[in-house]
Amino acid sequence: MLSELEKIIADIEIPCRAAMEEARRHQARLAKPPGSLGRLEDISVQLAGITGKVHNYPQKKHLLVFAADNGVIAEGVSSAPQSVTLKQAINLTKAKTGASVLAKHFGCDITVCDVGINADVKEPKVLDRKIAYGTKNIAFEPAMTRQQAIQAIMTGAELASNTEADIIGIGEMGIGNTTTASAVLAVLTDTDAEKVTGRGGGLTDSAFQKKKAVIKQAIAINNPDKDDIPDTLSKVGGFDIAAMCGAFLGAAATHRPVVIDGFISAVAALCAVKLCPDVRSYLIPSHASYEIGYQLAMEALKLKPMLLLEMRLGEGSGCPLAFQIVESACAVMNKMATFEDADIDDEYLEEIRRGDNFTP
Amino acid sequence: MLSELEKIIADIEIPCRAAMEEARRHQARLAKPPGSLGRLEDISVQLAGITGKVHNYPQKKHLLVFAADNGVIAEGVSSAPQSVTLKQAINLTKAKTGASVLAKHFGCDITVCDVGINADVKEPKVLDRKIAYGTKNIAFEPAMTRQQAIQAIMTGAELASNTEADIIGIGEMGIGNTTTASAVLAVLTDTDAEKVTGRGGGLTDSAFQKKKAVIKQAIAINNPDKDDIPDTLSKVGGFDIAAMCGAFLGAAATHRPVVIDGFISAVAALCAVKLCPDVRSYLIPSHASYEIGYQLAMEALKLKPMLLLEMRLGEGSGCPLAFQIVESACAVMNKMATFEDADIDDEYLEEIRRGDNFTP
Repeated sequence: MLSELEKIIADIEIPCRAAMEEARRHQARLAKPPGSLGRLEDISVQLAGITGKVHNYPQKKHLLVFAADNGVIAEGVSSAPQSVTLKQAINLTKAKTGASVLAKHFGCDITVCDVGINADVKEPKVLDRKIAYGTKNIAFEPAMTRQQAIQAIMTGAELASNTEADIIGIGEMGIGNTTTASAVLAVLTDTDAEKVTGRGGGLTDSAFQKKKAVIKQAIAINNPDKDDIPDTLSKVGGFDIAAMCGAFLGAAATHRPVVIDGFISAVAALCAVKLCPDVRSYLIPSHASYEIGYQLAMEALKLKPMLLLEMRLGEGSGCPLAFQIVESACAVMNKMATFEDADIDDEYLEEIRRGDNFTP
Repeated sequence: MLSELEKIIADIEIPCRAAMEEARRHQARLAKPPGSLGRLEDISVQLAGITGKVHNYPQKKHLLVFAADNGVIAEGVSSAPQSVTLKQAINLTKAKTGASVLAKHFGCDITVCDVGINADVKEPKVLDRKIAYGTKNIAFEPAMTRQQAIQAIMTGAELASNTEADIIGIGEMGIGNTTTASAVLAVLTDTDAEKVTGRGGGLTDSAFQKKKAVIKQAIAINNPDKDDIPDTLSKVGGFDIAAMCGAFLGAAATHRPVVIDGFISAVAALCAVKLCPDVRSYLIPSHASYEIGYQLAMEALKLKPMLLLEMRLGEGSGCPLAFQIVESACAVMNKMATFEDADIDDEYLEEIRRGDNFTP
């Protein structure tokens, strides 16, 4: 019998090739030099594959933010106190934080989901899916049990699956989660902690050295199995990253494009792709996080960011702008004139269609 | 007595330092790690300098598209026939082209201005500021007279100055204008034509070789003075680039932020900055054009693109998305909670304010 996790993975289909082909044919008819709208063209084709429809109208946009605390902050790896997780989780529901201001500005819905805040959350707008009051300290023991890791993944998967939206973005709020994300990334990519660890929200030089040492120690002590995602997440991850991984699976299983925010979101997406490689077809990158590990995670995902804004806030703050780019891609696909509509010369059209020696 | 061009240059003021300082102080009070919203923070400070106000609301967005023909296409430097300039100029007013579809989607107004289309334009929505029916062939003679170059610059400057908008984007439509833009850039940056010349809308290998040879020949025959922008524009430029250069001046003179589109727009912005270095403070980049010369032009401007979309359509197609980024920057500045509003620990706040050894 399939486990719940195996079931959701089995639900993830490869993109619809026929719709992608038809989308490409439609792009070729639009009145512009072929390929001149670059990644906007690619996104329109990707969306066709995801939804099975050539024309898409991603009007309902939804940002899912998973909030959790991390025991590893006892090691002094974060510049902010743990209480910030709770406070910003609540502020996210009130359009007071960076990501929630942007979501509101661009008409995106937002759901903030507590999967492990180390406090009782009295704000009812924060969805209660708490698995525990924070993780254990990975410097000395596993963050959580394997069962808890799977519970977190399934929590994210179910939330994303049940979210009514045409496009979903995945963000987080959790003090200490650049440490856990760096640890997971180091494991999954077989990379030294030095190369995946950044300063997160801002650290002094000595705290930064400590952070790298803690990540090395966490990996050495817990010995996670890189080929076993629940094992890696349970040993050196966090409830937020595990739930985000599940949310990527859930969005893909329900045929919705899903936007990666920054570093932590990219690591969670990588976990989802390791669990099910077909998830990759559903992923849309947003901004290039300033966190050092982001680039490595994106290389492992074979994706490139679309926005260069030097942001490193997290919370899903890159998603609302990425939604605007996806909307742009769809607007072009749905509204641009074809060569015929544009009354453009048959001769030019022929030249473009012939495409001899054509290099964009 | 000052010439008209000297007058508009004299009107361009340096940004308001006091407003920028106040904007920086407000950013420091917002509940986020300092600098974590990267270029969104920078843009909010830049806008404060431009308008003199800490809080800005760029609701009225306007795309100015300058259309003109280029005599040099007689040399076979373009894959598209000249008739495309007229047809797409008209289609731009009907929200049928790439840039105009995006402008409409995001609620930007658009003005298409004929400064040199080689045809009588019967569509009244295309603003008639025609200087001539296309330029001469720069491979053999100057594109236009010096007086015409100044007339084109002033046409753009006046149009931008008189455009009611909070933010302006500058685009173009002109078959053959990657050739003229490459020639202008090669002159201004003392760079070999090989290094600034791309395939534009799409060229065969032999046409591409021809294009590079034509640019070299145009520069050799016309011998433009790189320190004299009207001279350079008149000899190897085009009516569109000259008018765009003027539009950058006009936007700056009237204290509005002005968005660079792709390659041709960046070259026009560089001409404006060479005429008046203070223009640089008013410029906002958009996407990284796939045209090879774009990067060189941006290096000369000391600017970096914000969008990586592999676009090379022109028309101002990068501007509507850049407007969304500027809106994001303003939304954060205007709507995010301060640390006090966010109910975040004094201790954390103190640590951030102390900022010892803080490196983002």
